[in-house]
Amino acid sequence: MRKSADWARERFAAARAARLATVSAAGRPHIVPIVFALVGDRLITAVDAKPKSTNALRRLGNVAANPSVSVLVDHYADDWTQLWWARADGAARVGEAGAVEGFAALVARYAQYREQPPPGPVIEIRVETWSGWSAE
Amino acid sequence: MRKSADWARERFAAARAARLATVSAAGRPHIVPIVFALVGDRLITAVDAKPKSTNALRRLGNVAANPSVSVLVDHYADDWTQLWWARADGAARVGEAGAVEGFAALVARYAQYREQPPPGPVIEIRVETWSGWSAE
Repeated sequence: MRKSADWARERFAAARAARLATVSAAGRPHIVPIVFALVGDRLITAVDAKPKSTNALRRLGNVAANPSVSVLVDHYADDWTQLWWARADGAARVGEAGAVEGFAALVARYAQYREQPPPGPVIEIRVETWSGWSAE
Repeated sequence: MRKSADWARERFAAARAARLATVSAAGRPHIVPIVFALVGDRLITAVDAKPKSTNALRRLGNVAANPSVSVLVDHYADDWTQLWWARADGAARVGEAGAVEGFAALVARYAQYREQPPPGPVIEIRVETWSGWSAE
């Protein structure tokens, strides 16, 4: 059954990882797994150690060309009565690590980042629509 | 490190669930979790019990407007040395259940479908690019 925006937001607050979909200038979708922090109605995620890798460049280029993004948190189980998902749709922008409000929350959330903060860039997503579904 | 196409394909063959990203006519991305079967270099997934729901219609309308899709399988762990993901990028089309080659493999793969096959429609994805990454 469909769930409330508050329910979906809570699922993101509790999740350790999500998947980010962006769209290229040519209209092709791209998905990558992300770690993130939820700060108010914004999701903050960083490009990790290799910002010049093909994969990192693609998501950054996509956001620059088209700010619309979709982010998913979901749970799978062979018992389908346990299935659920939550989605955050919104607009993203790329900023430098440290200049994006909420970057500290991202660093604080993961032991690996506390030890070595990601060099950035940072993607900041202003969530416009929270949606969710649960089998139960 | 980057992994081979064969490695990525194997990850899909073993995975029980994935995430499908499509793009709307207006260029907005949309992500949903899916169950699927891998048949050769095609991924087969069905719309479940409620093909008229907003969510099902959106993915079908997106594929009709723009066949480019991206599908992700990934593994998260708090120990980041365990992280990996595999991605399949390709072109999708919508068909009727039973008329799509590979539908039987989808039904055979999940107990719930064996008991009650999904009524369709079915999304058939011809994978053009397999890619993957593993921390180790």
